[in-house]
Amino acid sequence: MSLVVVGSVALDTVETPKGRADDVLGGAALYFSLAASFFAPVRMVGVVGADFPRATLDELRKRDIDLSGVEEAPGKTFRWTGRYHEDVNVRDTLHLDLGVFAEFRPKLPEAYRDSAYVFLANIDPVLQASVLDQLRAPTLVGCDTMNHWIAESRPALTSLLRRVGILVINDEEARLLSGERNVVRAAAKILEMGPQAVLIKRGEYGVIQFAGGSVFAVPAFPLEEVTDPTGAGDCFAGGFMGELARSGDHSPKGLRRAIVYGSVMGSFVVEDFGPRRLLGLTKDDVERRYRQFVSLTDIGGG
Amino acid sequence: MSLVVVGSVALDTVETPKGRADDVLGGAALYFSLAASFFAPVRMVGVVGADFPRATLDELRKRDIDLSGVEEAPGKTFRWTGRYHEDVNVRDTLHLDLGVFAEFRPKLPEAYRDSAYVFLANIDPVLQASVLDQLRAPTLVGCDTMNHWIAESRPALTSLLRRVGILVINDEEARLLSGERNVVRAAAKILEMGPQAVLIKRGEYGVIQFAGGSVFAVPAFPLEEVTDPTGAGDCFAGGFMGELARSGDHSPKGLRRAIVYGSVMGSFVVEDFGPRRLLGLTKDDVERRYRQFVSLTDIGGG
Repeated sequence: MSLVVVGSVALDTVETPKGRADDVLGGAALYFSLAASFFAPVRMVGVVGADFPRATLDELRKRDIDLSGVEEAPGKTFRWTGRYHEDVNVRDTLHLDLGVFAEFRPKLPEAYRDSAYVFLANIDPVLQASVLDQLRAPTLVGCDTMNHWIAESRPALTSLLRRVGILVINDEEARLLSGERNVVRAAAKILEMGPQAVLIKRGEYGVIQFAGGSVFAVPAFPLEEVTDPTGAGDCFAGGFMGELARSGDHSPKGLRRAIVYGSVMGSFVVEDFGPRRLLGLTKDDVERRYRQFVSLTDIGGG
Repeated sequence: MSLVVVGSVALDTVETPKGRADDVLGGAALYFSLAASFFAPVRMVGVVGADFPRATLDELRKRDIDLSGVEEAPGKTFRWTGRYHEDVNVRDTLHLDLGVFAEFRPKLPEAYRDSAYVFLANIDPVLQASVLDQLRAPTLVGCDTMNHWIAESRPALTSLLRRVGILVINDEEARLLSGERNVVRAAAKILEMGPQAVLIKRGEYGVIQFAGGSVFAVPAFPLEEVTDPTGAGDCFAGGFMGELARSGDHSPKGLRRAIVYGSVMGSFVVEDFGPRRLLGLTKDDVERRYRQFVSLTDIGGG
């Protein structure tokens, strides 16, 4: 089934305790698309500046990522420079230049408007809603957001959430959105806002899903080295939505499998700087790690 | 199979965001024994003062907890007063009076010396070793410790660890003991110190076990209310060792089942102050929550 994502495309410069990488591919839509493309074709909506490397665009196209919705605008690509601490859950933004992303108004090509699966990566909820307005009849709407919009654009965000099927956020965002510290109560309040399911990302501790009366928790894959955490959440969302678009199975079982595939993709991307690990990854690697997740979590196994 | 535990018995006064409880039963050996007694008879080694309520001792005996190893000494029972923050992972000790526990030298009754399963709750590693010296041929030795002993008694602790089968500690202790921040590397270093398995408790995020080449992670049970976190780790250990003593099954599968039973017991105890929830619990409650854990974590389920 067709899958469309809207969000940022960026060039990142990242320092972590493991080293530094300059001008690597970044942005939520890009990480999402790379991860999702292991499961289903992806239609991307975003904007890049004149400085964005052409060769990269060609590389993405080869991966079954449709870039006809990616505008090439005069000006500079969104650039982010960040530094992760020894505790990689903590990071500082050293520099931020929105460039052409500041004026980004998502426009879906006509061919995208029939997309069944849509993921609204973290951008202004007004723009996220405008994407939904351009879609004919999406089957499943996934959505991310961040503290900034929760604090500054709550009316637009709550209005959007009534149109969202699955909200994918981190624990801090869940607490801020719900006003509840406890994850169970936070999830219950969020589900009252509209979504049928909420997936709460807990960094190195994995993901917990609340959907109706059912709860599913999966730990993160235990890695010996985390080289660069950038993009982990977006690759989770990409693997998750990609697998749902592939299978078309929204049953509790289908959702769980998709959550594990999301966790698989999130676990790979942090093994190298930027999206490098994904670029070298095979479908066999993905299936192997899926089986490792089964072994990691199987109460009846060993 | 016979199971013996050595550790503290206390009277706790606890303040949490949910309220306050005075002079409730506490101490690692007591929580451990109550949790383990749902699975197998328990032999307890500890010390109480003249102020310890007799009726409580009778209550424990009714639960298949052998108290012939609990010394009744002249003086006061170990007392702890603590306050938990809004974030219940953080607590302050307001008052501590070791009382008769200060001079505690564990002495195993003759009838305990054939115990197959032993759990050394958190006390001075020199005393933990003295307990092993008094046992004939234990099948499985479980052990807990804390930051204080890791920092102040490292030689005694590392010597003890060579005699331990399964170390059960929290993530902060694992980092301090190993000098590694990353949980995978921390576990690898700890396994080099002697234990065949290390179980790392991660509070609200559950438990992760490293044993040989196998890793098993189970999330904590998502609770809407945590009334009093005291004893969660000790009840985890009690459910875990109790189930192993019941089944005698140390296979990877048997260990996983025991870890889940441990998680079940840890999830119950925090639902009320002190051990109250355990005192009202039935074996049916335990089995029901075990099945909820299966549903919570089953990738193939829903």
